[in-house]
Amino acid sequence: MPDQPLPGAPSEAVPLDDRGLLLGDGLFETILWSGEALVLGEAHAQRLLRGAALLDIPAPTAGAFIGCAEAAAGAVARVRAAIRVTLTAGSGGRGLERPGVLRPRLFATASPSARPAGPAAIAVSSIRRSPSSPLSRLKTLAYLDNVLARREAVAQGADEAVMLNSDGEVAGAAAANLFWVRGGILHTPPTEAGCLDGIMRAAVIAAAGDLGVEVRMPREAPEKVAGSDALFLTSSLIGVRPAFWVGQEAPAAHPLVERLAAAVASIS
Amino acid sequence: MPDQPLPGAPSEAVPLDDRGLLLGDGLFETILWSGEALVLGEAHAQRLLRGAALLDIPAPTAGAFIGCAEAAAGAVARVRAAIRVTLTAGSGGRGLERPGVLRPRLFATASPSARPAGPAAIAVSSIRRSPSSPLSRLKTLAYLDNVLARREAVAQGADEAVMLNSDGEVAGAAAANLFWVRGGILHTPPTEAGCLDGIMRAAVIAAAGDLGVEVRMPREAPEKVAGSDALFLTSSLIGVRPAFWVGQEAPAAHPLVERLAAAVASIS
Repeated sequence: MPDQPLPGAPSEAVPLDDRGLLLGDGLFETILWSGEALVLGEAHAQRLLRGAALLDIPAPTAGAFIGCAEAAAGAVARVRAAIRVTLTAGSGGRGLERPGVLRPRLFATASPSARPAGPAAIAVSSIRRSPSSPLSRLKTLAYLDNVLARREAVAQGADEAVMLNSDGEVAGAAAANLFWVRGGILHTPPTEAGCLDGIMRAAVIAAAGDLGVEVRMPREAPEKVAGSDALFLTSSLIGVRPAFWVGQEAPAAHPLVERLAAAVASIS
Repeated sequence: MPDQPLPGAPSEAVPLDDRGLLLGDGLFETILWSGEALVLGEAHAQRLLRGAALLDIPAPTAGAFIGCAEAAAGAVARVRAAIRVTLTAGSGGRGLERPGVLRPRLFATASPSARPAGPAAIAVSSIRRSPSSPLSRLKTLAYLDNVLARREAVAQGADEAVMLNSDGEVAGAAAANLFWVRGGILHTPPTEAGCLDGIMRAAVIAAAGDLGVEVRMPREAPEKVAGSDALFLTSSLIGVRPAFWVGQEAPAAHPLVERLAAAVASIS
């Protein structure tokens, strides 16, 4: 940990009037710490900055963001870890309304994070995202729908929830992006369908391009996605993780999924 | 303030691993303090308990809830005030997933709250609620959609946002329930449309019954609601507040709205 906390960085607690605590008014990033360095730290910093601009919350500099994340990583030192960086809108205002000047809080915590083993069982959640809201595309502190969707999936014996949008189209997973392969073509929902602009999602799309694989971003019903040749999840912590519908047999390895996993293995 | 804090009650701050802070995993109530007593405190306690059961968060007793709210009211003593009681899911877990045993945190803060003067200008928000989510009907710590909807309304010169659901039907306002009068009949959306089970909403519906006024709970498009004879908002802090569409002239007093406002005036 640094000797001096960053300006506005709470070291152990946030006050009871923090808008992140009271209203979910803020953003977060979850970054992989390889044991030696942040993985794609600059991409996470830039996404937080874009989200803060959308929500009209003054953002830290990318340097302050990365410094905060690296300081938290000091607590876990040389193990693979998840670094969670949180930006709240700070204190004040009256009910829903923000104060005239926001003084955001930035803090980070770290916890060891093993690479998940084996494919993930997935189940469709009854909770649908509203693409009319910017929240459907951002990692905000108002993440309770995702918590509830994951709980619903786990109660069905699955590892992760697939979330649809209000039109019944596949949007993504509770804490990951979803991809599927059909006829040799890679598919993932467009962000406009209500999915996170995932950093590992972008890395996989880029890797597919390098491999000469066509990528499509359709709006599809889950029944159509279910008929795909292979499914996988992506996130900064899991990289590429094969997936299958709960209740079905775990799938055999799919060559394209394996190639994509290998292509991003160095960054997850 | 009491000499002894309640068990699990943070007095000044919550730790950085609190799930309410990190994920919006929790609930709140906003209660009117008349200057002498909590108004409908038991009803607020029971609603929080129902919400906690829905979210599977261990709830405090109604007595602990009311004790916490009254202790906070001590800070504002004999002025009309808003008491905000917050229940978080506590610390721990791994990412979205909760720990095996939740140890919720309960705390309350108070701030003076003047009765709003005059009718409220309202504007329809572009952010739509998803009735598939229990969050559309609860006051959860994941309230950022409401913050953003209010900001959008204020930017248009309005005081409050009307929120539609994903089917384009009127659901309610960002921090209030919405009613309209047409042909002498009182209308408000059903909770299934994605609106809060408001405590003042219930009081107004009961008052209408006492006055022999028919109440309907239809799912209506905003264009149809716009053609009503009168509109008003309800909440614990504002009671009954007449409303009008931003850009139109503020309405003349409507007899039924005035009678309903008078009927609940003793409790707001």
